[in-house]
Amino acid sequence: MLDRLRIVLIGTSHPGNIGAVARAMHNMGLSDLALVAPRCEVIHQESISRASGADHLLHSAARHATLEDAVADCTLTVGASARSRTLPWPMVSPRELAERLPSECQPPASRVALVFGREDSGLTNAELQRCNAHIHIPTNADFSSLNLAAAVQVVAYECRLAWLSTHTATEPSTLHEDTLASHADLERYFEHLERTLVAIEFHDPAKPRQLMARLRRLYLRARPEQIELNILRGILTATEKQTARRQVTQDTSSTHD
Amino acid sequence: MLDRLRIVLIGTSHPGNIGAVARAMHNMGLSDLALVAPRCEVIHQESISRASGADHLLHSAARHATLEDAVADCTLTVGASARSRTLPWPMVSPRELAERLPSECQPPASRVALVFGREDSGLTNAELQRCNAHIHIPTNADFSSLNLAAAVQVVAYECRLAWLSTHTATEPSTLHEDTLASHADLERYFEHLERTLVAIEFHDPAKPRQLMARLRRLYLRARPEQIELNILRGILTATEKQTARRQVTQDTSSTHD
Repeated sequence: MLDRLRIVLIGTSHPGNIGAVARAMHNMGLSDLALVAPRCEVIHQESISRASGADHLLHSAARHATLEDAVADCTLTVGASARSRTLPWPMVSPRELAERLPSECQPPASRVALVFGREDSGLTNAELQRCNAHIHIPTNADFSSLNLAAAVQVVAYECRLAWLSTHTATEPSTLHEDTLASHADLERYFEHLERTLVAIEFHDPAKPRQLMARLRRLYLRARPEQIELNILRGILTATEKQTARRQVTQDTSSTHD
Repeated sequence: MLDRLRIVLIGTSHPGNIGAVARAMHNMGLSDLALVAPRCEVIHQESISRASGADHLLHSAARHATLEDAVADCTLTVGASARSRTLPWPMVSPRELAERLPSECQPPASRVALVFGREDSGLTNAELQRCNAHIHIPTNADFSSLNLAAAVQVVAYECRLAWLSTHTATEPSTLHEDTLASHADLERYFEHLERTLVAIEFHDPAKPRQLMARLRRLYLRARPEQIELNILRGILTATEKQTARRQVTQDTSSTHD
């Protein structure tokens, strides 16, 4: 289970924090580290010192330009977030997330991404809206911003406890029968959906009114299986065909005028 | 309860670690920090930087020459320890300790000390033998030494969760912000959806192939809110409008033939 968990750090600006994250991960038995557009050197005196013997994770860390690339093969993406956002998203505590992991990690192709944002500003709304759920570590309301490595430590600790508990526990129940759609498949679906909504004149990208954000939230919450996503895309294609035919017919009919 | 918990650091040698401990404590709502014979400057550029706004804990920290002085007024003293010791001591996990705290902190004069040792060598046997119990954070057996502040973070996090659980005002995790759609609303949606899928020639009720069953399962799993269902129905209406227009245009164009 722990080998299915990926820690994704976006736009980290202090090498020491990356090193401390590597140490916390290795302490808890995690090894898959992905770095999205780091704003500092990764292999640095400070990161190696703080990794304190876990610097092999710094060397093996995958580098990506975007969050989308970093989580393309993941079936569950959870982003660390402060509580209040304009459009509330499904919110889990570290413990609730960890308790779900044994069943989440059961299908053979499953992979779970835990995404942590910038030291100064966290994750952007666009990044948060790529996540199935948000994770919030309970903190003192007057002083709520955890150090990046401390946040990873807490979440990784809960993951380790959940993993330890599976050594004695019974088979977890599953919500899904088929392989879950990957992040990249879902992003292709959202692009297709937006294109179709524009074509049927339901959506005006100039006046978005959170429409796509709301639809994202709905479908990300549902965690579509691959077969379900195929159906949803089939519906979009059939809809587009209607719109295209109408336009052809209109063009034909106007030549008659 | 949290104001009855004291974090005791013995012989710390890095100011940055003391600062990071102060931050972790303040994040979790703890404020009583005691330093026993620190082997570095406490008020230092590095400790203030890592405290990141919690440096008042550095200034208010009590200084002691011995562990005995630091925990003299405590009714329970728990020392962080690696697992194997020559003389086994009562051993608790952070979670077990946290679960005991609400009752431990009930008597009016009670005070609980959580003691953390040196970065390089932990607590001595003599220090461990002053403790009522030892606490062990589960770690990767091949890489078990946590950073000092990371260890304090994990234990303080468990204490905070235990404290939150004694309050009814704990923030519940939320999956939904708005009122959920009713069963009847959902059934109306499924009827509308099926009608539309027939209209766009995606669905043939004579050859159903479990299509509607699969779509039902997807949307019922997502538990749509009312506002989301309104959007989904709006999309169906916009789709039907396209289909209707096409038919009108076709009818018009055929009169020209």
